[in-house]
Amino acid sequence: MSTNADQVAINTIRALSIDQVQAANSGHPGAPMGCAPIAYTLFTKVMSFNPKQPDWINRDRFVLSNGHASALLYSILHLSGYDLSMDELKNFRQLHSLTPGHPERDLTPGVEVTTGPLGQGIANAVGLAIGSRNLAANFNQEDMELINNNVYVLCGDGCLQEGISSEASSLAGHLGLGNLIVLYDDNQITIDGSTDVSFTEDVLKRYEAYGWHTSYVEDGDNDVEGILSAIEAAKAVTDKPSLIKVNTTIGYLSSKQGTEGVHGSPLGAEEVAAVKAKMGMDPEQSFAVDDSVYTTFNEAIAANSGYDKWVESFAQFAEKYPDLAKDLQRRIDGELPEGLIDSLPRYTPEDAAVATRKTSGKALNALNDSLSELIGGSADLTGSNVTALKNGPGDFQKGNNAGNYIRFGVREHAMAAICNGLAAYGAFIPFGATFLNFIGYAQGAARLSALSHLRVIYIMTHDSIGLGEDAQTHQPIETLSSWRATPNMNVFRPADGNEVSGSYAQAVQTATTPSIIALTRQNVPNLEGSSVEAVAQGGYALNEVENPDVVLVATGSEVSLIVDAAAELGNARVVSMPCMDIFEARSDEEKRALFPDGVPVVSVEAASGVGWSAFSHKHIGMSTFGKSGPGEQLMEYFGFTVDNVVSTAKELIAAGDAPKLSLKW
Amino acid sequence: MSTNADQVAINTIRALSIDQVQAANSGHPGAPMGCAPIAYTLFTKVMSFNPKQPDWINRDRFVLSNGHASALLYSILHLSGYDLSMDELKNFRQLHSLTPGHPERDLTPGVEVTTGPLGQGIANAVGLAIGSRNLAANFNQEDMELINNNVYVLCGDGCLQEGISSEASSLAGHLGLGNLIVLYDDNQITIDGSTDVSFTEDVLKRYEAYGWHTSYVEDGDNDVEGILSAIEAAKAVTDKPSLIKVNTTIGYLSSKQGTEGVHGSPLGAEEVAAVKAKMGMDPEQSFAVDDSVYTTFNEAIAANSGYDKWVESFAQFAEKYPDLAKDLQRRIDGELPEGLIDSLPRYTPEDAAVATRKTSGKALNALNDSLSELIGGSADLTGSNVTALKNGPGDFQKGNNAGNYIRFGVREHAMAAICNGLAAYGAFIPFGATFLNFIGYAQGAARLSALSHLRVIYIMTHDSIGLGEDAQTHQPIETLSSWRATPNMNVFRPADGNEVSGSYAQAVQTATTPSIIALTRQNVPNLEGSSVEAVAQGGYALNEVENPDVVLVATGSEVSLIVDAAAELGNARVVSMPCMDIFEARSDEEKRALFPDGVPVVSVEAASGVGWSAFSHKHIGMSTFGKSGPGEQLMEYFGFTVDNVVSTAKELIAAGDAPKLSLKW
Ligand SMILES: [Ca+2]
Ligand SMILES: [Ca+2]
Repeated sequence: MSTNADQVAINTIRALSIDQVQAANSGHPGAPMGCAPIAYTLFTKVMSFNPKQPDWINRDRFVLSNGHASALLYSILHLSGYDLSMDELKNFRQLHSLTPGHPERDLTPGVEVTTGPLGQGIANAVGLAIGSRNLAANFNQEDMELINNNVYVLCGDGCLQEGISSEASSLAGHLGLGNLIVLYDDNQITIDGSTDVSFTEDVLKRYEAYGWHTSYVEDGDNDVEGILSAIEAAKAVTDKPSLIKVNTTIGYLSSKQGTEGVHGSPLGAEEVAAVKAKMGMDPEQSFAVDDSVYTTFNEAIAANSGYDKWVESFAQFAEKYPDLAKDLQRRIDGELPEGLIDSLPRYTPEDAAVATRKTSGKALNALNDSLSELIGGSADLTGSNVTALKNGPGDFQKGNNAGNYIRFGVREHAMAAICNGLAAYGAFIPFGATFLNFIGYAQGAARLSALSHLRVIYIMTHDSIGLGEDAQTHQPIETLSSWRATPNMNVFRPADGNEVSGSYAQAVQTATTPSIIALTRQNVPNLEGSSVEAVAQGGYALNEVENPDVVLVATGSEVSLIVDAAAELGNARVVSMPCMDIFEARSDEEKRALFPDGVPVVSVEAASGVGWSAFSHKHIGMSTFGKSGPGEQLMEYFGFTVDNVVSTAKELIAAGDAPKLSLKW
Repeated sequence: MSTNADQVAINTIRALSIDQVQAANSGHPGAPMGCAPIAYTLFTKVMSFNPKQPDWINRDRFVLSNGHASALLYSILHLSGYDLSMDELKNFRQLHSLTPGHPERDLTPGVEVTTGPLGQGIANAVGLAIGSRNLAANFNQEDMELINNNVYVLCGDGCLQEGISSEASSLAGHLGLGNLIVLYDDNQITIDGSTDVSFTEDVLKRYEAYGWHTSYVEDGDNDVEGILSAIEAAKAVTDKPSLIKVNTTIGYLSSKQGTEGVHGSPLGAEEVAAVKAKMGMDPEQSFAVDDSVYTTFNEAIAANSGYDKWVESFAQFAEKYPDLAKDLQRRIDGELPEGLIDSLPRYTPEDAAVATRKTSGKALNALNDSLSELIGGSADLTGSNVTALKNGPGDFQKGNNAGNYIRFGVREHAMAAICNGLAAYGAFIPFGATFLNFIGYAQGAARLSALSHLRVIYIMTHDSIGLGEDAQTHQPIETLSSWRATPNMNVFRPADGNEVSGSYAQAVQTATTPSIIALTRQNVPNLEGSSVEAVAQGGYALNEVENPDVVLVATGSEVSLIVDAAAELGNARVVSMPCMDIFEARSDEEKRALFPDGVPVVSVEAASGVGWSAFSHKHIGMSTFGKSGPGEQLMEYFGFTVDNVVSTAKELIAAGDAPKLSLKW
């Protein structure tokens, strides 16, 4: 079933993995012991990659969707020759190591996506597979195939129980992503015990229903050849994604093998020694690798790599198709096309009032006209989100892999994770769209955009009670506060067309930060003093008032309201705050220049006030859920009126010197 | 296929529905026109209910999972005799009407759960079905069947695309919920166009893979008998849930029938008239109902109701089984058992330091010993969440419907929605558990707990970087801020055992508010001055200091840190804030009593600082994601040390009079 060299290598992976967990006295030994043969087969007999060029665009991608098996990944990356030393393995899960408890894509060479939260990896992989197919369709030539990589996923039953995997897998089947191969580690165990307690569905049948190719390997603990031939068969199916169910034993070879007891805690020194003895290894030694194992890996990987040949091909390609090659190289390097920002639309107060979701549609289309790396779509709300792309290659579908508009279906969570996968692929700037309230469905994945530094643009329309009759189930209240509280996520709520363009300008230029752009359903005027560039400051004054009696600050649709209130008040500064996250990062002096000590501040945002205390003395916001009714009536009912802003401001002015805000900064 | 009376009634439903949308000039006419025969069949030929007793515990439940078809629901509730007048239908989607854009359970009689966010309803229905089966198993006697209701769901393809429906349906199949019958309105249309663009899976096969009974009705536009016989066949399958795919035409009878053009906007007056003419109705009349239609509904509903007979049975039951009857009545009335709160464990500083997840386990078990309505479980983290129930009826499984511990599997989103369904069923207090960070996966459903006033208890352990090595993918940062910003959600972060008990005391007593209880993985000491009762104040002082130089405020595991810092500082007040939401609702005077004007406040919480500005001058918190490493090392690395608190406090004291905070309140 496997050669002796195979067996020694697999045992070494197992030993290294349990050594890591033992040294950390924390972690998950069971899955690495069970899955070592799968990972070994992939890395030495299947995948094309170059460990010294981990960013090579055409490498096969490996996604460890069951991220808690991180020790397995670190073992195999080390043995494969990635820049991950034995010392890092010894420092598994320790502060500042390259081997955190769950794999992080921007930290450890060879880690493609950040996993741990279950189900994310398999959905990321759908994005990676779309990315590959899309690049291939747009760049490969009849005589030259530049992009043809496959995407391999290892996942457990936890991943398959999560709804996100259902969403992503249904879409992958629909799209016929034949370059996606998932190896399902079926060990019949979850944390709570046997899968019998909660997971008894027929997984292969479910995947067949999605339109996948499926197969089964009976002895995943030992049968390298069986695993290999299942993978080869899956590779031969190019019009469907594949799911290979591999029967394994969690904690294989330990005395508690096949039980949940071996899932999430160290085996203990004695047991580690016993397992090593069973494998014919020296039980006294830890982190020991026989030279022959390195050789096994080196030789196999060199034989499969394909890297040198690809570099040659690319040079030929560049000669024959210089424009295409230049565009691809630019995208790989992460450089934006020249003039991109200038191409964004600009507005004057004379332009008609219009919903920011519509000016968003214009900005997005302006980008689309020159940004070939733009790819994305909506979770079945294309018309409402105004995300249709007018020019370009059309829908990404089975029959049109060149398309850059993705019909995600009603699948918000998968949409976000697929966008993460596209961003992680490299050479793409993905976007996803839905109503602002429903980014909540995608929280698990959008959080990972931020955490793993992926430039995903979330186009979120219908951003407040202003959406009207669809009522409280659709009216976000907590959403802006929630994402402002999330590190490395920029939340934009532009007030008008210029700020919409400015928000997109920021979003495409912050290469390691995702953005949420919150947009109105209802019309808003184009404001005097607004600008595309000012968005880069986070907050800025729309009017010039030397010594204001009061500062009014608002975002989005409420900015025009404070403009009107300021007109009534007279000596009031009007601050638009399209991105509080950016503003917060500015210096105390810059903040104080807008919000001078002693001057009262009234903030207005049709959303939760949580977070506004840092910048204002009184907030006019939402402290309850919304209601059903026409948007203007709701705005009035909940106090978003010129009268209310004016009287609140007058009260504060009358109360005298306002407490310093700047102590907070 | 249907009698003339059926046809007239169905046409009336269609007409009323399009009239509502037309009057509101907003809403969704397409689904009501296509689904009228399904709803009609259910309400007049299948379901047992009494419109004048909408809270009758054994009524069959109807869930409109595709909540955007609300006009259909309002039409049929009106015709069925619920307290929903024609004027309310005329006020569809208007401010203060009983007919909001999407159905709201606590507003409109006959609406069982709040729907609109897709996929929620079908998952709620799994909770309703579990509730029914559990009550039946615990209360029915061999000679008396008190509880035997069924749960009917109408859903569209949007619901089935959402991951939450996959999670819930897989679990429903596992649990063999034969009392759950889902009618899938297969109209081949989504908002973006044909389902061909994104949804081509084989739905029936997928549901068979989950272990469901499936069937198909070809002409859902007309074939009442076919719909009825499919439902009867499904009812006969008592060990499996059923999915009936019903082929319908969206916007049936309109000129744009069968297209996305009829999904989400009014038909227009002309088209409304044309449809009525086609149905043989007077095109000039709106909101017109022939008396014969009311009669059709009245007679059919009276024949099926079963209510009077049930009341009689219950009286007999009460005579024969007085204790059981009393307990059921108490639960239906929402009264807690006497002495419940006193049964919660209490601690003194002499008790050993222990993780709050463990004192949570003790409190939960104390409740479980006397609270027969308690039901819930964990998303496959029973051991980590410490939610195992020691006494009682065991796991809720196919073979043990009396069990009150639910093995949700790795399905956080469905878990929350199922808890919503259980709470909406009545006579249950449900709980769900996972790591705090992964309530994000359940955001869509947990938000609806708050919005629809459902007492669900979210037991969320591993609540900060203090969890250690599992690293940033598992360490919540934004979560507390996010849920504090959510209206009607109480976020508890207890500091020790007493506060844990106090949090549970609040959670079970706030009958219309869900709670999140955030708990540590790591040990914390039992504090001097903490108490079960004080949690009701939201925030309170742990020590008595008349005129403090500084106030230190913290939550959860950071409270013991400020206790130590206060000891070093001398004249410092220590405030524990186990629930900021409750504290915020207190009077200005009460707030000022804890945080006196002019006294500097330092707040400490190992999470985002967003929201703390309302109560403090300087926050020691997290402004980035976490890291991998032992919890104590992370706490130190990120500045959660006595030294840091002391020096921050000293700086503030030295800076002199602190700005008033109270302006914010
Ligand atoms: Ca942020
Ligand atoms: Ca709250």
